[in-house]
Amino acid sequence: MNFLEERIVNDGIVKSAEVLLVDSFLNHQMDIALLERIGAELHRRFADKPITKVLTIETSGIAVAYSVARAFGVPLVFARKSRNVNLDGDAYVAEIESYPTRKLTQIIVAKKYLSETDRVLIIDDIMANGCALQGLIALVESADATVEGLGVAIEKAFQEGGHRIRNLGYRLEALATIEAMDPETGAITFRTQE
Amino acid sequence: MNFLEERIVNDGIVKSAEVLLVDSFLNHQMDIALLERIGAELHRRFADKPITKVLTIETSGIAVAYSVARAFGVPLVFARKSRNVNLDGDAYVAEIESYPTRKLTQIIVAKKYLSETDRVLIIDDIMANGCALQGLIALVESADATVEGLGVAIEKAFQEGGHRIRNLGYRLEALATIEAMDPETGAITFRTQE
Repeated sequence: MNFLEERIVNDGIVKSAEVLLVDSFLNHQMDIALLERIGAELHRRFADKPITKVLTIETSGIAVAYSVARAFGVPLVFARKSRNVNLDGDAYVAEIESYPTRKLTQIIVAKKYLSETDRVLIIDDIMANGCALQGLIALVESADATVEGLGVAIEKAFQEGGHRIRNLGYRLEALATIEAMDPETGAITFRTQE
Repeated sequence: MNFLEERIVNDGIVKSAEVLLVDSFLNHQMDIALLERIGAELHRRFADKPITKVLTIETSGIAVAYSVARAFGVPLVFARKSRNVNLDGDAYVAEIESYPTRKLTQIIVAKKYLSETDRVLIIDDIMANGCALQGLIALVESADATVEGLGVAIEKAFQEGGHRIRNLGYRLEALATIEAMDPETGAITFRTQE
């Protein structure tokens, strides 16, 4: 097991076969030393790519994306959900279905922060059905910029997001890929990484 | 002028006497090197305090708070606005009035992430009327933890937040304190810092 899988086993809480709580270290209280290691490892995996910008979506993706952007030495842009907007000028807009509520939400990025010369690494903390990441891909493509890849801390492989995004031809890296969770024993099965 | 005041003068956009856009470097696109300097400077100003935790509120406070928490080597906790909640167990709740909509919003932190032994530094990116910071103070006090101080990147001193919080006896540090803005000339007047 790598450092993130070990942390998930030690401090994650399996609430059901689909719900894993990682709020003690990743998305409510944040262990900064852990986030720095996640950033360093995602940087290592995409070190061959000429990344010019890291893109994420509010809220809990911001800390992971900060750490990755710091490792690459590039700006971080986070897409906003539309209710919060105080942007100057035009924006790219995509629509995503929120998990688990199935509510449609618009996500937006100001046009001036994505240009056709940008080579973008898309980052989030947890991927389930992949809708947020697909919305971010749509924003990058609206700008005629290049998606160099996508990186997440945790992939829930029993939901369809990873499969869907890799089938579209994108390179997607996850530091911990969960195949299954057993709420009775609390056991978590990870996909073996090379 | 310090580094942040210079950056505001160079890249901030005065939209009106009350609205300053800093979305090119602070709260939509983020300049990570600048955020690292903000974190280092807030760390320097509170280096005499035995901080155990940094507390902020989603969304745009997270990056500044990350940088501060990294400098102190302590965990970061961010309060959530109540609609997003997937927390395990009980939570502390406070109510804040959002600027500029005047809508009431509940903010919450899981009880297990604030305890009475915590000595908390509260961080946000921009302070206007101070309602978000006052809500965060209320959360810390609900936990019988100690507020060691509050730090923001930008204080709009022509709104009442800073006055109100300092009058309550809290130490509040702002790296750039704006006294006035002139939308016709774009001029920004800063309070002199020692």
